[in-house]
Amino acid sequence: MAEIAVAAWPAVSSPGAGLESAPSTPRQHCLDLDDYSRAEIEQVLETAAAMQEILARPIKRTPALRGKTVVNCFYEPSTRTRVSFEIAAKNLSADVVTFSSGGSSVEKGESLIDTARTLVALGADVLVMRHHLAGAPYVVARSAGAHVVNAGDGSHAHPTQALLDLYTLRHRLGDLSGKTIGIVGDVLHSRVARSNVHGLTRLGAQVVLCGPATLLPHCSTLPGVTLEHHLDRLLPHLDAVMPLRIQKERASAGLIPSLREYRREYGMTLERLERLPAGAVVLHPGPMNEGVEIDPEVARSARSAIEEQVTNGVAVRMAVLYLLAGGAQ
Amino acid sequence: MAEIAVAAWPAVSSPGAGLESAPSTPRQHCLDLDDYSRAEIEQVLETAAAMQEILARPIKRTPALRGKTVVNCFYEPSTRTRVSFEIAAKNLSADVVTFSSGGSSVEKGESLIDTARTLVALGADVLVMRHHLAGAPYVVARSAGAHVVNAGDGSHAHPTQALLDLYTLRHRLGDLSGKTIGIVGDVLHSRVARSNVHGLTRLGAQVVLCGPATLLPHCSTLPGVTLEHHLDRLLPHLDAVMPLRIQKERASAGLIPSLREYRREYGMTLERLERLPAGAVVLHPGPMNEGVEIDPEVARSARSAIEEQVTNGVAVRMAVLYLLAGGAQ
Amino acid sequence: MAEIAVAAWPAVSSPGAGLESAPSTPRQHCLDLDDYSRAEIEQVLETAAAMQEILARPIKRTPALRGKTVVNCFYEPSTRTRVSFEIAAKNLSADVVTFSSGGSSVEKGESLIDTARTLVALGADVLVMRHHLAGAPYVVARSAGAHVVNAGDGSHAHPTQALLDLYTLRHRLGDLSGKTIGIVGDVLHSRVARSNVHGLTRLGAQVVLCGPATLLPHCSTLPGVTLEHHLDRLLPHLDAVMPLRIQKERASAGLIPSLREYRREYGMTLERLERLPAGAVVLHPGPMNEGVEIDPEVARSARSAIEEQVTNGVAVRMAVLYLLAGGAQ
Repeated sequence: MAEIAVAAWPAVSSPGAGLESAPSTPRQHCLDLDDYSRAEIEQVLETAAAMQEILARPIKRTPALRGKTVVNCFYEPSTRTRVSFEIAAKNLSADVVTFSSGGSSVEKGESLIDTARTLVALGADVLVMRHHLAGAPYVVARSAGAHVVNAGDGSHAHPTQALLDLYTLRHRLGDLSGKTIGIVGDVLHSRVARSNVHGLTRLGAQVVLCGPATLLPHCSTLPGVTLEHHLDRLLPHLDAVMPLRIQKERASAGLIPSLREYRREYGMTLERLERLPAGAVVLHPGPMNEGVEIDPEVARSARSAIEEQVTNGVAVRMAVLYLLAGGAQ
Repeated sequence: MAEIAVAAWPAVSSPGAGLESAPSTPRQHCLDLDDYSRAEIEQVLETAAAMQEILARPIKRTPALRGKTVVNCFYEPSTRTRVSFEIAAKNLSADVVTFSSGGSSVEKGESLIDTARTLVALGADVLVMRHHLAGAPYVVARSAGAHVVNAGDGSHAHPTQALLDLYTLRHRLGDLSGKTIGIVGDVLHSRVARSNVHGLTRLGAQVVLCGPATLLPHCSTLPGVTLEHHLDRLLPHLDAVMPLRIQKERASAGLIPSLREYRREYGMTLERLERLPAGAVVLHPGPMNEGVEIDPEVARSARSAIEEQVTNGVAVRMAVLYLLAGGAQ
Repeated sequence: MAEIAVAAWPAVSSPGAGLESAPSTPRQHCLDLDDYSRAEIEQVLETAAAMQEILARPIKRTPALRGKTVVNCFYEPSTRTRVSFEIAAKNLSADVVTFSSGGSSVEKGESLIDTARTLVALGADVLVMRHHLAGAPYVVARSAGAHVVNAGDGSHAHPTQALLDLYTLRHRLGDLSGKTIGIVGDVLHSRVARSNVHGLTRLGAQVVLCGPATLLPHCSTLPGVTLEHHLDRLLPHLDAVMPLRIQKERASAGLIPSLREYRREYGMTLERLERLPAGAVVLHPGPMNEGVEIDPEVARSARSAIEEQVTNGVAVRMAVLYLLAGGAQ
């Protein structure tokens, strides 16, 4: 199976993008934020706030998805995302079945679509899917007959991560209109960056993509998105900064000179933290390479919202699952 | 542990076979269909129909096995069967524990029997077991003290697959007495074929085993079972055809000339589909090698019951688990 | 990450050791028995007895941990311990999430502490942790913000195994004051032996560590603990004997001449079983190397409490989880 072509980077928005009202037909899938309107994103964030209240109760459970089956299909290793969806689904009283590519008929050469159809025929109501190939969840969504949630596809999209980033930023910064958010590092290969660009601009924020030329797109044609190569120059203008995980392989591939050089130019150190305006926030999608793109003192500082992101992720995923599969259908 | 000798192929029925009434003592295990009477098979199929009704409800749950623990012991990779049993058990409100041979004391050399006894001492009520060695579930059934369900043992038996095939065929064809079912391909190495032969003949069907001489038994001594080498000659006489998955290794082992040759003689193509009588059905135990033993257009045609098989499998496994471990014990 | 220094062997008790009353602040973690007072151990054993009664009911469930999430973090393969905790947690109505080091961001180099913090931020109330490095659960307990249960750390400690041994011994022998328990074999590398020494001596038993000089500590400075090299001389004086699993690698490492030699000197054979006083019990932490440190006839004899140990383990782990995470918090 070859890499499936999806939106080029910088991504051109899909046809449904930019709608100002919630869609009239219920949403079937959560594949990326480019087809979420502002109203629909706000509906997710408000539902997540309600879920957060449930999580504050002594028994953090709601029967919203009782009798539904959520299948976690992870074709790529993951801790936080898989466990986050698993806990989110269990909090909604759904049954959760984990399906990873090792130890399955995937090894016998079964196609992605056949596996998905089989899971649906077995009773899956929602397929939460992570795959190393960009576009894989779209293929499944088109043919499987269940709700599909993209939990990360190649370097394409990771919509629930972007939604939890939006939720966390709104909680810390209030309305995001006119706010400036810096996404720093390996933007070119980052599904987190791509989905955040869609989500942040939809909510009215300005996005600055920052990093070495080798890790940024050549130019931005998206409204509200600009490029910047000098992090130190950028920091005083930001309301939030999101350093991205840098893969160690980027150095051996010649995209960065070394991790040490990278840290000198783009690492979020305590010194750089001082350059941010008061009230600015540090996010990180995790897992962190501490001492490379972010220093441990920064990650544990009062300005860091990194642990909140993880916690908020459960509420946001509960909201996404509930809006897709809950209610009268 | 050497391969345990079980019934030779073509299998001679076991002593209890062919009974016309349900057994007087409750059944403890589901190891193969050769010791199921016709009445007992019908009891499973009727119970599965009741389970199917539960699955049609908005909340597809019954508390029948609440507080019971089902352990899925898979010593061989599997998607559909493992997940099917897991969903079936959860629909019955049982707790499900998954135990696969990797990452366990199996690696420390613990014997199969000791592992099984440990699982029972931990509280397992039912062991669902897949193993690459024929007979392994029998060994465990004899000594473990829990109900054992054979989810596939080597090339010996796969009784719940056969039961779901019977259920699907009865739903499509009605009473199976006098119907003719063709099982096509690598019969010699197929646990699905073996269990289906027992089940189908018990319900009064005629079975024709079809394939190249290298993949069929030399002769059949079982009443109701005949052999045929020419698929095209056979098709007009069938009420249902079940192509079996052909392992790619059969070509390198010299049992078939090539996958291409195999397809030309035995592949279920659209042309061959036309040769079946009106109303005849196509089954496949999955996972399919599309373009080899079955073409994708055939698998997705109106005559295909392949997706129904998967869905019915959940109801049938609920029935099997319920009849073993449910009720007053 | 280098091996973290923990108590040397023979272990010097920790500051809190030897208290005669239950602690005034509620216990947060179960890391080893050296900081459990006699009263606190008895509280666990009494709670386990109550759990045993729940397990005898037709529906072996209590809602004590409903809405709580127990994460099983296993960095080392395990069957019995992982499944035992999983069943224990489910019996208490907790949600259980399994996290093993394969297929996770551990592979991406995330630190143990970051993984643990992430799991807690995701909602974990209890982390049950097995790790090949001694001390790893202590590191996590210090920084993660959830209850930590040590399910075995390197050759350091395995407190719930010791608690289930104490429970089983008390059930078979009554009060352990003045009783003599022999622990035989590879004491030096055994976390089971270490935790049992703390637990047994706290309850007033005498412990004799028995084995070849290469597998025993040089001397014992712990009150109530003595060393002995001749098993046959020791057996007539024991109320219980616990042969430890001998790793086959000990022979190639030159610590024992061969498994055969080992068995001749220290294997629990039927002959040696006869040398025990009437009423004496045989335990084994499992998995067994049958025919090496214990013969199958001994393991299955009436004096063996080995299967009881496994069953009791579920009740004891229910008690540990309940005492940490149940109740008003």
